[in-house]
Amino acid sequence: MNNEPIGIFDSGVGGLTVLKELRRILPYEDIIYLGDTARVPYGIRSPETVTRYSFECTEFLLSKKIKLLVVACNTVSAISLKEIQKKVSIPVVGVIEPGARAAVDSTKNGKIGIIGTEATIKSSAYFKAIKAISEDLEVFGLACPLFVPLVEEGWTNGIIVRLIVEEYLKSMLEIAVDTLVLGCTHYPLLKGVIQDVMKDVSLVDSAIETAKVVRKVLEEQGVNSNEQGVRGQGRLKFYVTDSTDKFVSIGERFLQSKIEDIEKINLGR
Amino acid sequence: MNNEPIGIFDSGVGGLTVLKELRRILPYEDIIYLGDTARVPYGIRSPETVTRYSFECTEFLLSKKIKLLVVACNTVSAISLKEIQKKVSIPVVGVIEPGARAAVDSTKNGKIGIIGTEATIKSSAYFKAIKAISEDLEVFGLACPLFVPLVEEGWTNGIIVRLIVEEYLKSMLEIAVDTLVLGCTHYPLLKGVIQDVMKDVSLVDSAIETAKVVRKVLEEQGVNSNEQGVRGQGRLKFYVTDSTDKFVSIGERFLQSKIEDIEKINLGR
Repeated sequence: MNNEPIGIFDSGVGGLTVLKELRRILPYEDIIYLGDTARVPYGIRSPETVTRYSFECTEFLLSKKIKLLVVACNTVSAISLKEIQKKVSIPVVGVIEPGARAAVDSTKNGKIGIIGTEATIKSSAYFKAIKAISEDLEVFGLACPLFVPLVEEGWTNGIIVRLIVEEYLKSMLEIAVDTLVLGCTHYPLLKGVIQDVMKDVSLVDSAIETAKVVRKVLEEQGVNSNEQGVRGQGRLKFYVTDSTDKFVSIGERFLQSKIEDIEKINLGR
Repeated sequence: MNNEPIGIFDSGVGGLTVLKELRRILPYEDIIYLGDTARVPYGIRSPETVTRYSFECTEFLLSKKIKLLVVACNTVSAISLKEIQKKVSIPVVGVIEPGARAAVDSTKNGKIGIIGTEATIKSSAYFKAIKAISEDLEVFGLACPLFVPLVEEGWTNGIIVRLIVEEYLKSMLEIAVDTLVLGCTHYPLLKGVIQDVMKDVSLVDSAIETAKVVRKVLEEQGVNSNEQGVRGQGRLKFYVTDSTDKFVSIGERFLQSKIEDIEKINLGR
């Protein structure tokens, strides 16, 4: 038993979908969230730069004495997860492996679609993770570059969103995947519209799957909070590397609750 | 008379709309374009960082012995133009002042709309530039965050684009501006749809206005190319700080011609 906080970082607000799920299934844990908003987006940077940035995020959270680290960023999970795991002694959970495993469990016709940012799709990280579990499955990747700006603008339903989702996903309908992985932490906010368009397809929400893995690891290692219900809900603390205003206004839509205890810090130079 | 090249830089591909207009009205000039694609977008960085990056771009182009520098980036023009002008001895032309002046010349009812990225609108750079020319005009700024990703995705017409443009610009129609400044170098690619939606409104294209100012400065200083027609069209040379592939595929849509002579360089560390 261990009351130290869980640490979680992302390049921006996207990882808040993971935080939301963690909070839902592990309400008594203290959680520290770091959004490296001054250097977002990571997806367009070189692998060396992404690794350097993610080490800086990791070191900051380690200085807060966390017991487990969640890498809630698809780009970092795809590029730097193994290097972070080598570097630290606490458990580190990424977002790709949990989503890949849930997709393998879900598919019946053996055709899995992956949607994500250009960087995530180009990295083939989900493709490799799924193939590593089962060689026989067919995996189809598709970048949907407009989904992130749509979500950040707060447009998550209505006719415009519906048309954009239809435009992107028509190829997935043609291929007839029976499982679609939301391979970007922003995409759960579009889940309603995506499910409407992909009627009989199972959607895999990486945020939900990642939270489940975190719960399992805490239980296995016996490091979950020992004060369940005694001291009430766990505390949430937020750090960002750029102005807090924009993070709060967009972030509260992601989290569907208030962001109160937030602080701006500097990372790198 | 002077056959040295014109230098032009932007954080990414957007400045190519300015290059296209320069090329159209000054076909015999050699032009060097620098896109700092490894560090795009500048609009979300602090003013100190934007200034540092823009000095690095300026120094690189000066090392190529340019005779005039075009800052084809709204963010840099808003934040760092004066500091760049202080630092160098050649003429430096930004994109904001030319657009502001054209808007003042165009308006009849005294109501001018400015559309741009969040960073440009927040900087109030167009507002200040217009007010400096005429105190009496009313200026209305509006950020349209989805326009840049739309253009980069290559979606510049069709029903989806039309609906998005209508959604953003309905406030401008209500205010009844008679002049609308396209205050972002990406927006000229949406000009057709924007004009359809804003029927009787004059659109000011900063790219066109900036190119006109460049021609005027070259003429005034007597440094335009002396080989008009003798050696044929001027040469175009491109430098980028990240992979050339994506720049070429998106850039050719901006330029509506081939991008051939392109090289990747490193700026900063």
